[in-house]
Amino acid sequence: MLRLLHHPLSAPSRKVRLQLAEKELEFGLELEKPWERREAFLRLNPAGDVPVLLAEDGTPICGAWAISELLEEVHPEPSLLGHSTLERAEVRRLIGWFEGKFWREVGRNLVEEKIFRRLYGQGGPDSNALRAGRANIHAHLDYIAWLTMRRKWLAGERFSLADIAAAAHLSVVDYVGDVPWSEHEDAKLWYQRVKSRPSFRPLLADLLPGVPPPPHYADLDF
Amino acid sequence: MLRLLHHPLSAPSRKVRLQLAEKELEFGLELEKPWERREAFLRLNPAGDVPVLLAEDGTPICGAWAISELLEEVHPEPSLLGHSTLERAEVRRLIGWFEGKFWREVGRNLVEEKIFRRLYGQGGPDSNALRAGRANIHAHLDYIAWLTMRRKWLAGERFSLADIAAAAHLSVVDYVGDVPWSEHEDAKLWYQRVKSRPSFRPLLADLLPGVPPPPHYADLDF
Repeated sequence: MLRLLHHPLSAPSRKVRLQLAEKELEFGLELEKPWERREAFLRLNPAGDVPVLLAEDGTPICGAWAISELLEEVHPEPSLLGHSTLERAEVRRLIGWFEGKFWREVGRNLVEEKIFRRLYGQGGPDSNALRAGRANIHAHLDYIAWLTMRRKWLAGERFSLADIAAAAHLSVVDYVGDVPWSEHEDAKLWYQRVKSRPSFRPLLADLLPGVPPPPHYADLDF
Repeated sequence: MLRLLHHPLSAPSRKVRLQLAEKELEFGLELEKPWERREAFLRLNPAGDVPVLLAEDGTPICGAWAISELLEEVHPEPSLLGHSTLERAEVRRLIGWFEGKFWREVGRNLVEEKIFRRLYGQGGPDSNALRAGRANIHAHLDYIAWLTMRRKWLAGERFSLADIAAAAHLSVVDYVGDVPWSEHEDAKLWYQRVKSRPSFRPLLADLLPGVPPPPHYADLDF
């Protein structure tokens, strides 16, 4: 069976979990705490970061992008990247948006600061970073709304890895209570649709000891 | 003809230029200054960042990852991703290493601080960031050496996008004079091999007005 080394509040880990579940692939989930820098884990992935997918024979596939592309190559149906070159370029553009721009402008400032700094022993959150993250998130929610007013899903007519990447990244910010849903009704409607998919359910059950999510986090009618 | 909107000190732009040149594709190069936030550019790429590749019919392909994967799909030979699923996973792992980890730990701290902060009107470099970037680069050069002692090129027996991504990211740090080559002989030997390829020559001729590179930058026997 496939095994995924992950952390519950790692957005790239969540992206891979959603992709595996959407493809109805069975996999085991193993908690990894990258800040512990376990020797055996560093041998699998010298970058020291999750997610790492272990193939049936134990071969490690490291990094969310490598894993996602490999899963599409080996298990092409249902396709989450799209059927034409241009569809795939659009899906990959939006994955890049959320893994790159969203993470730099929002996720890093909120989730890294509130959760991972402490776990890595770097102290508490920086208030300037929190302020920046909370200011920056509005433009991203507006962009999601703009896209979903023109398309059924973020990258087009089909649910894709673009929706998965966006929802994975938003879901960890939602866990720390920093998504202003009440000000972004259209983005919220899109997120409700993603959140209602069976693939999403296990993510909503994740709990970080000592850091409970806000009450609306696991609620489908938030 | 293909056109690439780029900035000379953007490592992802350099990655795409090298890939296009290795595939012997003709393309026009157009300087974009993302900090000017040109309306026409933001319509092409709402993320506001380079590189953007314009197809023959003007369709924009945004983001280095989307562009690289599209070029491999449309122009598969010579393959720069590898011929098997596992080869491609290894190439993509290493691209992720340099576009992600290296950028976060090194490039951001040196090139963003020394060059782009000023261009974006955010003032001069932060000395803590410079110190962190200069400390962090050693582990990356050691890792390059470790790989090239076991393989002909970074990802295996063939020159690939892994070498291209690594060299693109190192080359902009080299432009600002912060690669300690003399302490990393094996990494330097690998970089010399990449730097000697015809695809690399145009990058070495790039000049940023008012910010000359160090004398060794364009020298093949540095």
